[in-house]
Amino acid sequence: MMHVGFFCLFVLSAVDVASSEKVCSFQDVLNHLNLTKNNELFYMTRPVKDHRLATDVSLDILLYAILDVRETDQTFIPYVWLVVSWQSQYISWNPKDFCGIEKVSIPQEVLWKPDLTIEEMIEKDRAPLSPHLTISSNGEVNLQNDLVMVSTCRMHVYKFPFDTQSCSLSFRSIIHPLTEIHLFHNSSSKEATKESKEFMRTQYEWLFNDIKIYTETTHSFGYDQDVIIFTINMKRRSILYIVNFLLPVLFFLCLDLASFLISDNGGEKLSFKVTVLLAVTVLQLILNDILPASSNRIPLIALYCIGVFSLMMLSLLETIVVMYLMRKDSEPQEDKAEKDRCLKEDKRGQVNFHNCEEAQQQPDG
Amino acid sequence: MMHVGFFCLFVLSAVDVASSEKVCSFQDVLNHLNLTKNNELFYMTRPVKDHRLATDVSLDILLYAILDVRETDQTFIPYVWLVVSWQSQYISWNPKDFCGIEKVSIPQEVLWKPDLTIEEMIEKDRAPLSPHLTISSNGEVNLQNDLVMVSTCRMHVYKFPFDTQSCSLSFRSIIHPLTEIHLFHNSSSKEATKESKEFMRTQYEWLFNDIKIYTETTHSFGYDQDVIIFTINMKRRSILYIVNFLLPVLFFLCLDLASFLISDNGGEKLSFKVTVLLAVTVLQLILNDILPASSNRIPLIALYCIGVFSLMMLSLLETIVVMYLMRKDSEPQEDKAEKDRCLKEDKRGQVNFHNCEEAQQQPDG
Amino acid sequence: MMHVGFFCLFVLSAVDVASSEKVCSFQDVLNHLNLTKNNELFYMTRPVKDHRLATDVSLDILLYAILDVRETDQTFIPYVWLVVSWQSQYISWNPKDFCGIEKVSIPQEVLWKPDLTIEEMIEKDRAPLSPHLTISSNGEVNLQNDLVMVSTCRMHVYKFPFDTQSCSLSFRSIIHPLTEIHLFHNSSSKEATKESKEFMRTQYEWLFNDIKIYTETTHSFGYDQDVIIFTINMKRRSILYIVNFLLPVLFFLCLDLASFLISDNGGEKLSFKVTVLLAVTVLQLILNDILPASSNRIPLIALYCIGVFSLMMLSLLETIVVMYLMRKDSEPQEDKAEKDRCLKEDKRGQVNFHNCEEAQQQPDG
Amino acid sequence: MMHVGFFCLFVLSAVDVASSEKVCSFQDVLNHLNLTKNNELFYMTRPVKDHRLATDVSLDILLYAILDVRETDQTFIPYVWLVVSWQSQYISWNPKDFCGIEKVSIPQEVLWKPDLTIEEMIEKDRAPLSPHLTISSNGEVNLQNDLVMVSTCRMHVYKFPFDTQSCSLSFRSIIHPLTEIHLFHNSSSKEATKESKEFMRTQYEWLFNDIKIYTETTHSFGYDQDVIIFTINMKRRSILYIVNFLLPVLFFLCLDLASFLISDNGGEKLSFKVTVLLAVTVLQLILNDILPASSNRIPLIALYCIGVFSLMMLSLLETIVVMYLMRKDSEPQEDKAEKDRCLKEDKRGQVNFHNCEEAQQQPDG
Amino acid sequence: MMHVGFFCLFVLSAVDVASSEKVCSFQDVLNHLNLTKNNELFYMTRPVKDHRLATDVSLDILLYAILDVRETDQTFIPYVWLVVSWQSQYISWNPKDFCGIEKVSIPQEVLWKPDLTIEEMIEKDRAPLSPHLTISSNGEVNLQNDLVMVSTCRMHVYKFPFDTQSCSLSFRSIIHPLTEIHLFHNSSSKEATKESKEFMRTQYEWLFNDIKIYTETTHSFGYDQDVIIFTINMKRRSILYIVNFLLPVLFFLCLDLASFLISDNGGEKLSFKVTVLLAVTVLQLILNDILPASSNRIPLIALYCIGVFSLMMLSLLETIVVMYLMRKDSEPQEDKAEKDRCLKEDKRGQVNFHNCEEAQQQPDG
Repeated sequence: MMHVGFFCLFVLSAVDVASSEKVCSFQDVLNHLNLTKNNELFYMTRPVKDHRLATDVSLDILLYAILDVRETDQTFIPYVWLVVSWQSQYISWNPKDFCGIEKVSIPQEVLWKPDLTIEEMIEKDRAPLSPHLTISSNGEVNLQNDLVMVSTCRMHVYKFPFDTQSCSLSFRSIIHPLTEIHLFHNSSSKEATKESKEFMRTQYEWLFNDIKIYTETTHSFGYDQDVIIFTINMKRRSILYIVNFLLPVLFFLCLDLASFLISDNGGEKLSFKVTVLLAVTVLQLILNDILPASSNRIPLIALYCIGVFSLMMLSLLETIVVMYLMRKDSEPQEDKAEKDRCLKEDKRGQVNFHNCEEAQQQPDG
Repeated sequence: MMHVGFFCLFVLSAVDVASSEKVCSFQDVLNHLNLTKNNELFYMTRPVKDHRLATDVSLDILLYAILDVRETDQTFIPYVWLVVSWQSQYISWNPKDFCGIEKVSIPQEVLWKPDLTIEEMIEKDRAPLSPHLTISSNGEVNLQNDLVMVSTCRMHVYKFPFDTQSCSLSFRSIIHPLTEIHLFHNSSSKEATKESKEFMRTQYEWLFNDIKIYTETTHSFGYDQDVIIFTINMKRRSILYIVNFLLPVLFFLCLDLASFLISDNGGEKLSFKVTVLLAVTVLQLILNDILPASSNRIPLIALYCIGVFSLMMLSLLETIVVMYLMRKDSEPQEDKAEKDRCLKEDKRGQVNFHNCEEAQQQPDG
Repeated sequence: MMHVGFFCLFVLSAVDVASSEKVCSFQDVLNHLNLTKNNELFYMTRPVKDHRLATDVSLDILLYAILDVRETDQTFIPYVWLVVSWQSQYISWNPKDFCGIEKVSIPQEVLWKPDLTIEEMIEKDRAPLSPHLTISSNGEVNLQNDLVMVSTCRMHVYKFPFDTQSCSLSFRSIIHPLTEIHLFHNSSSKEATKESKEFMRTQYEWLFNDIKIYTETTHSFGYDQDVIIFTINMKRRSILYIVNFLLPVLFFLCLDLASFLISDNGGEKLSFKVTVLLAVTVLQLILNDILPASSNRIPLIALYCIGVFSLMMLSLLETIVVMYLMRKDSEPQEDKAEKDRCLKEDKRGQVNFHNCEEAQQQPDG
Repeated sequence: MMHVGFFCLFVLSAVDVASSEKVCSFQDVLNHLNLTKNNELFYMTRPVKDHRLATDVSLDILLYAILDVRETDQTFIPYVWLVVSWQSQYISWNPKDFCGIEKVSIPQEVLWKPDLTIEEMIEKDRAPLSPHLTISSNGEVNLQNDLVMVSTCRMHVYKFPFDTQSCSLSFRSIIHPLTEIHLFHNSSSKEATKESKEFMRTQYEWLFNDIKIYTETTHSFGYDQDVIIFTINMKRRSILYIVNFLLPVLFFLCLDLASFLISDNGGEKLSFKVTVLLAVTVLQLILNDILPASSNRIPLIALYCIGVFSLMMLSLLETIVVMYLMRKDSEPQEDKAEKDRCLKEDKRGQVNFHNCEEAQQQPDG
Repeated sequence: MMHVGFFCLFVLSAVDVASSEKVCSFQDVLNHLNLTKNNELFYMTRPVKDHRLATDVSLDILLYAILDVRETDQTFIPYVWLVVSWQSQYISWNPKDFCGIEKVSIPQEVLWKPDLTIEEMIEKDRAPLSPHLTISSNGEVNLQNDLVMVSTCRMHVYKFPFDTQSCSLSFRSIIHPLTEIHLFHNSSSKEATKESKEFMRTQYEWLFNDIKIYTETTHSFGYDQDVIIFTINMKRRSILYIVNFLLPVLFFLCLDLASFLISDNGGEKLSFKVTVLLAVTVLQLILNDILPASSNRIPLIALYCIGVFSLMMLSLLETIVVMYLMRKDSEPQEDKAEKDRCLKEDKRGQVNFHNCEEAQQQPDG
């Protein structure tokens, strides 16, 4: 009783004001719709009066930032602004009856929402959830939300660090077939690309190229479904990799080539070459941290490294062999020369090399 | 009163439309079932009218992606699509009474769900939960969900990096015995493998082989339970490990072997060999980061490393000893040769070596 | 019935106390306002009685701590104290009727709150949420909260480690246009800077400069919106980077320059220079961990490093070439000198060099 | 009205079936108990009718897996299956009245649960919570749950890597004294050990030894409390540490010892020894990542390392000093010998050493 | 109807038992207080009947463990047991009416709690929340909870690793001024220190010294507030840093000093010194990982390192210069000596040095 009484009182006070001019609050619209936290009509089922009607869900995204691209984990983390809107047949009012109110924003948990999933998403959205959504007098429901999507993406690192990556975000309903939820997008690929470029904040180490949007129909689990796929293309900024990785390796290769000019006689050539090889080994270790082991083909950069490594290896082996052969080659000559000299020395009565004694014993013996 | 009034109004407006043709909304079905957020009949207990009946729960999975396999943590992270369905005896309607509605999707929190646990799962599901489930006119409840399962898995790294891993996902009820919940799977191992291969997105560094499904009955905590075990077999892509780890170690072994050709006289042989040994030590440190310490048997790759290391060690020690012996061997000869030469020099009146003075003092003294 | 009865009892006991002096509890105010957990009037819609009125939201921040600035992730983590206040037209009481109560603190979940978003924020607030907010008799609602904001920020590392960073926090409503929510700030840039400096606890490795506050109007998604942008300027403390990175690299460059004094004859010059080069390579690896790859321009510090590296490289190559040329230059002379000497030796009857034999064969042949 | 009508209908249909045989659903039991989501009798207070009665809580654990043991963090992460059961005096029915139903499983949030805490646990349970618990006709409530417990544990690393660790899990009520909650365990230490060994899945790098269970009574915050302590003993698998750490260090020590055989004359001995010392330094760095700095006593392995390091250090210093002394020792002799020789040479008319000029100036001057 | 009937039945059965002796359950107290989940009297506002009365909140902590102290992040993570108690004027009963019940434990979410914040806390409490609190017949509410507090703390690393850190935990209300919530602590600094020492479990690498407690009144946001500050003092266990960092650096310095004994002639001195310098550089890199860059003063240990580094640098440069000067010094002498010798040789008819030819050409030309 008292509850009802209060309500009357409230209505009266509203009327009090309305004497001069009609004034409407948003709550009046909700009261008209009987839209409350607990009204299950709006929450429990797909909001169509005739179950044969499909719910059209429009879906648009705006790429805000590329937060991270992890090659080893094959993970792509974009920061995306998502706009979803659909029709609720239970929501409808005449704006004229409510002083022209055309839109009302209400807490998002009181309404049914399409059960969209992003197939590639492997973690819950990290960004805070938008608390409100907007309903319009014609029944349109509009939800805006920002998503930090930790998504899986098959990376193609064959041309690393000069690679271009394409990561997809595939939106589809989890359990509703095509006949119940129909997905479509408003903005074209071109518009989405243009807008994203305008709003883009940070791009990590990537240059955002474009977004491609297309719609597919998949058949899985026994029914057809609409899938909207947003494919984000981006190009790696390779300048720091060139400066910090490719150039040093190339420099060390040059050093190794230059080492052919070092004299074969002293031990310095060998120690020089092996130190340079060690430096390349250290640089190669960094590569392991960057590249994923998932590609069928060995990335060009790994081939580059192992190629440089092998070249140095071979030149090192060659140096060792050449030094060995030179030593072997000169030893018999030395032996012969020494024997000759020793013979001469005997004649001249002078000893210059201590191994003449042994050298003499052989021709004498 | 007003509430009821509104309801009448609503029904009337519905009737208004129904004059031409009968139109049904999904809410009508829920109203018929009296299925509301707060109806505890659907939520509190296992949905059987006769408590002696078991609830048959069918369970199928589709492997979407292998997100990570961490050897040191013994953790396996698959991304799995899970389809669970069971029978609720409190749900039943005649589709004919509702214009042919056969399925209704409703929020998942309003219904009882089987308390399935995955024994290996050591973290909460990271993926967002599916908000809806589907009920059918015959009482079947169907739940679809994607799970990022951080699960523990005993890794066998004996043959690393040429190893094949088998990781299991064991589904069972937490508290219901066999007589209450009966688990079974619809699709065979072959079908699950085929479908998973079709839908597979990323595979990390692994080649997915197949899924094996089998059902067990375990006895624990005093009662029998059904367990469905999905065993995922996969093979490691070892190419990058070969290129980045095995080859360099082998190369350094070759270098060490080649060093036998270096002359023993100069100091360069020793410094060359010890530098190569240092390079192998650096490479061996990486191994520590990859391999878990849990295996009873030492992995082959560790044996390979420590073997190469020991070989180099021994060859280094051998070089030192040989150099020592050669030095020891030549010293007495040199002493003798020198003394002889000094004697001759005295006769010939010439001094070539400064240590003749000392050498002479000994035979004289 | 019983429920109502109890309520009467309670009111009576309250009256009992009030006989001596009127005493008011905060609950009395809530009862007057009918503000309960479930009263949707306060929670569902924007609290204006006339929908044409905009809600003025004032917003002030106080920078408490700079928790982290990650250059590679382009992430900035400030710890901020946020004060938001707005007007609720449904809240109003006469303090005189309630013994002078002017403010009441209530749980924050019972009231509508503006849907503010921080555009740069990429993770949910990590700090615990403030459980209460304050309502005043004139309808003002005041919310205080501390936020740990993991926000994205485009870093300018060109002058690293002598750089100054500006990171923005842009507050705006998610779905309300300018006509519905009007944002403004009370304190000026100067006041906010002064207060923040006073309360600042930890600053990581940064020196906080100032906060700049300005308001913008953006047009996106078809409507105008107020945006308040707080720009935090801070300067890096570069002392440890100088001591631990710049100085060692400079030292190694000095060493490399000093190595020109080392004699070209022995092998020590080469091995010295290559070791110094290796040390610089190791130091350069650290740089990779610090710098993000996102800048268009190569940072000065990377140029410094690669410059030092290249200088050392060139001086090393030059040394090799010079040594080679000196060797080449002296060889023919030696050959000639030796031939001459050998001829003389023949006359004098003495052999000092073993290659006279070969040298002689050429003039003789 | 309609609501009640529906209910009657339902009862009637149930009666309809019951004509042949009485059939009971679990909901019937709950209806009998008046156990609903909102019945605060079951939820708000400790379920005893006489407040003087203590609630007996039995507690048993089964160790499922040892997920991680982090020495530096002093953290131990077991995966444990927990079975808790207690008596609720508000729950009681005659199974005969309900067709023999003896147990009903219900959602866990509707009942009061003992406020058990694990004193060592420093993070919320990571595993998903069990959604159901079981009530029996005699009032027993049974809760099963799997816990991933990130717990703090004082590690004893003195004997690392041959150490045995004991980590405790101490269960007690947070606010209830001994007179209100009495804790006990059913299974003995031996049984728990046996069962855990049977179910153990992964053990990280540890060999599980046994679980010891004992009950203590502590006095804190002014009242007595029962504490059940489960102590898990485990032994480290040290094989990989031996192979990857101890052996290499030992090998390098051998190398250092072997270096005494290298000739003191050339520079190779010094560079060999310093390179080996560098290799040990690199290995020692790994130790820093493994060992916590919390022990009062220096771990044996650190002593081993620093011992080997010091030995090498000393042998290196000794080598330098010996080389210095040998050089000093030979220099005066050489000087004398040279002077003598120069004198002789003058007589014999021959010059072999360029420093005779200077040497002569001294005796002449 | 049925509902009421059931209630009567229950009351009757209770009366049945009470015939022999009066028996009270805790629920009886709650019924008396009308304390239910939904009674907003207990939940919505500060529990005072007269709004002018302040709520006295007592606050005591017990330090359980020091879980982590991260110097680079300036983060301190203690594990603390918190006891908070305050007065609720709506809670009061006569224990005699309820068979002597003096305390009742109830779920913590049904009561108003003071909005305490810890100013330094930068992450939500990681430990599980205590589910219950205790109310007493005199209206006292007692809450116990364990908190894992990730808090920011300004570290003073000037004397690292011989430093003592003081980290504060400042408790204050978020929105209540001094006139509404009055904070105080029961136990003195001495008691808290003693108790904490008794219960301390793990201390990471720190030795806990003491807790200092003091109360401050701050003025911020326009009103006064009580702040209780707990300052935890602790001393670092520096033994492992000495063994693993300071000693090796010192050893390398000794080695560098000892290198003055090495002969300047061979190349080994230079390569020895540069290798030792490289080893110190590697050790210095570890320092970067430990020390935060936030201090105004360079830490002593960094000065120690850069000092040792500079000393070695200078001694290396000095060696190079000395070698250069010695070489320059001896060259002209050699030239002169050689010319002299060549002249003599011509007279004596003997050639010992090949460069006499060139040497002769100059005096002759």
